[in-house]
Amino acid sequence: MKKIFFISLLMLVSSLLSAQPNYKVVFDLTSRDTVDHKLALRWANEVLKADKNAQVEIVLFGQSLAMIAKDKSVVSDAVTKLSANRNAAIKVCKVALKAHNVEENQLVPGVQTVPDGIYEIINKQRQGWGYIKVSH
Amino acid sequence: MKKIFFISLLMLVSSLLSAQPNYKVVFDLTSRDTVDHKLALRWANEVLKADKNAQVEIVLFGQSLAMIAKDKSVVSDAVTKLSANRNAAIKVCKVALKAHNVEENQLVPGVQTVPDGIYEIINKQRQGWGYIKVSH
Amino acid sequence: MKKIFFISLLMLVSSLLSAQPNYKVVFDLTSRDTVDHKLALRWANEVLKADKNAQVEIVLFGQSLAMIAKDKSVVSDAVTKLSANRNAAIKVCKVALKAHNVEENQLVPGVQTVPDGIYEIINKQRQGWGYIKVSH
Repeated sequence: MKKIFFISLLMLVSSLLSAQPNYKVVFDLTSRDTVDHKLALRWANEVLKADKNAQVEIVLFGQSLAMIAKDKSVVSDAVTKLSANRNAAIKVCKVALKAHNVEENQLVPGVQTVPDGIYEIINKQRQGWGYIKVSH
Repeated sequence: MKKIFFISLLMLVSSLLSAQPNYKVVFDLTSRDTVDHKLALRWANEVLKADKNAQVEIVLFGQSLAMIAKDKSVVSDAVTKLSANRNAAIKVCKVALKAHNVEENQLVPGVQTVPDGIYEIINKQRQGWGYIKVSH
Repeated sequence: MKKIFFISLLMLVSSLLSAQPNYKVVFDLTSRDTVDHKLALRWANEVLKADKNAQVEIVLFGQSLAMIAKDKSVVSDAVTKLSANRNAAIKVCKVALKAHNVEENQLVPGVQTVPDGIYEIINKQRQGWGYIKVSH
């Protein structure tokens, strides 16, 4: 009985600890400024470079949609390239897409959509991901 | 004994899980820009719309006080309306009020005060609320 | 056995609770704007004033390096003074130093370096520190 208890306790503790991953970051990007679009990409790439097991996600809402709209983005190649990394994702909020009249077929290849950008971000935080607001 | 152990473990785990609520967000607002004042309100309202059990709180400090000062706010009606929602709160830091010579009787109706805005925010984070910095 | 179980449970719970410190804040500073440099220092000092056991850390990366470069900082005295507080630290990202050609011997006295500013921030978050993005 005693043994089972301690094994269970150990499993519980280790499951709690393992909920804290090594290097996972969600970047919150709401800026229309292309400097911030470039910074988000640079920081995400630097994290992936620092740790090959790192995971990064850039979540766009608010006024940042020019970054991922085909006809407006100044970083579309870098967006597609980062999205192709299996440890990275670039996700845009559908509520923001609708508010800014951006159709899903106008998105830069590789960009994913989520129903609610804010929920996406806080859900990642809840799962133990670090949070970085992109600004300069 | 075995039964008690597993019940206790279950209670412990469920209490830990319940500390992670469904959709609770604290918005950190320090900007003097009225665009950010409108964004904070829009985002808070969108969260409440997305989930009727969601909880939102906008915490103001730094240079954002014009949003909640009667004679300066361009969003006073929206501030009062949001504050009336039992799942929402708009709270301003007393240290910031003092630093900017804003009296409590000058606050837009519905706005609450907290002794320390930064503590309010980090305490919410500690309780499992998501954090979003308001900027654009 | 029962006693051991409850003592172990108590230890587990208290270790979880003690992982949530009273008042610890990491400030994320990426702005080149000297207003933000002053705000970061003011907020850090206010936290330390509010609670003598509080701990604060300002982490600089991105475009904020003028704050801690000897020949550019407009707040060098305040940086050195805050750094001297045993409950405070000002840390700059080595990747950012290299990217902006700032040598370590050009740093304002008291400033520390970290290999990776983003990792420093998310690691603090993981340890239960609150997170505040500095902007205005």
